[in-house]
Amino acid sequence: MARVSQEHLDARRRQILDGAALCFARNGFHATSMQDVLKEVDLSAGAVYRYFSGKDELIEAIVAEVLGAIRDVYERAAREDPPAMPDELIARTLAHMARERPALTDDGQWLFPRLMIQAWTETLRNETLSALLDEGFAKVLAAWAKVVVRYQEAGMMRDDVDPDAVARTLMATVQGFGAQYALFGSFSPEALQAGVRGLLSMREAPDATGNQSVKNA
Amino acid sequence: MARVSQEHLDARRRQILDGAALCFARNGFHATSMQDVLKEVDLSAGAVYRYFSGKDELIEAIVAEVLGAIRDVYERAAREDPPAMPDELIARTLAHMARERPALTDDGQWLFPRLMIQAWTETLRNETLSALLDEGFAKVLAAWAKVVVRYQEAGMMRDDVDPDAVARTLMATVQGFGAQYALFGSFSPEALQAGVRGLLSMREAPDATGNQSVKNA
Repeated sequence: MARVSQEHLDARRRQILDGAALCFARNGFHATSMQDVLKEVDLSAGAVYRYFSGKDELIEAIVAEVLGAIRDVYERAAREDPPAMPDELIARTLAHMARERPALTDDGQWLFPRLMIQAWTETLRNETLSALLDEGFAKVLAAWAKVVVRYQEAGMMRDDVDPDAVARTLMATVQGFGAQYALFGSFSPEALQAGVRGLLSMREAPDATGNQSVKNA
Repeated sequence: MARVSQEHLDARRRQILDGAALCFARNGFHATSMQDVLKEVDLSAGAVYRYFSGKDELIEAIVAEVLGAIRDVYERAAREDPPAMPDELIARTLAHMARERPALTDDGQWLFPRLMIQAWTETLRNETLSALLDEGFAKVLAAWAKVVVRYQEAGMMRDDVDPDAVARTLMATVQGFGAQYALFGSFSPEALQAGVRGLLSMREAPDATGNQSVKNA
């Protein structure tokens, strides 16, 4: 009986988080009231406030959950021998997000990227959220950096670049994907994967000396 | 005399745009009033409204200018033979932005990335800005894609990936860089360049078959 009860609590919590995420993604954090969230999830105030004290706790829980899910992908990849290539791991990240948050769609559009860029703007003005995002993002980076170290150890990547810099750059592609998806809707996970694959295939021009001498921007 | 006069007009326009950008970056678009902008640039309403009808025209002019400046970098690169590698072009993009907008700093922090992520959130709710960003971004992508085609023609990149997908991915690294810089302040243009350089150096693991068979995410 206790197990069923915990499942019920978890499902209820999930329902509230998904409803709040949908509201925030559609209308932004500031323009969303707790009344909007209650209406979306079709629960009483008492039922919702048992789980979350308000909008701040909701957005914090959403951000923490998303960062944790992304980190999992890289933690697992770091245990592979060798880890999958970055284009594959980025595809896994996006597939994982879409699978974990099936409720976060509206008219077939995936709303998570919209939520993401609005959370960034909110973060500029909310110190608690800023601290949470900073800490969670650092953990994601640390997990990605472990994968990068594995690439370097396996001779798959030059080892004179800082793994942290590569991890940040890889996360940047995912973040920039989100921005383009939210703003223009015209970037697909498959296109991002193909784009990264193109970059991974690059070589200096056959006649290049190895020095990048063209500096006249 | 006409030349001096035009210079004066241009300088005044520049001063207003930089002041407005500073206000928007600091406090966001909604929380900034035209009064804040007038105060920041230390000009009368009459002097400012001769150039811009209001906040909407200001943010639109800023976005158009930024996208035009970024596009220039890739238009020029497409005329190089062969074009510089992506890590170098990304470094040029960021250096160009920082050089073109010297006024956009506060306490030594480069405010442009902060302005950028706030403009994205605003774009979700402003159709004029959305259309402008969509059109300007498409032109930036087209310029980057020309560079990618040059890479492929020169045998520097596999030619079975869509140049548009690679262009989007490269822009994504710049956008993600901006997000991380604005949110955490801990990503430098040099680290982004190093990170891209690491990715460009990647090879499959020596014992890999060429198929990426690891699909068990």
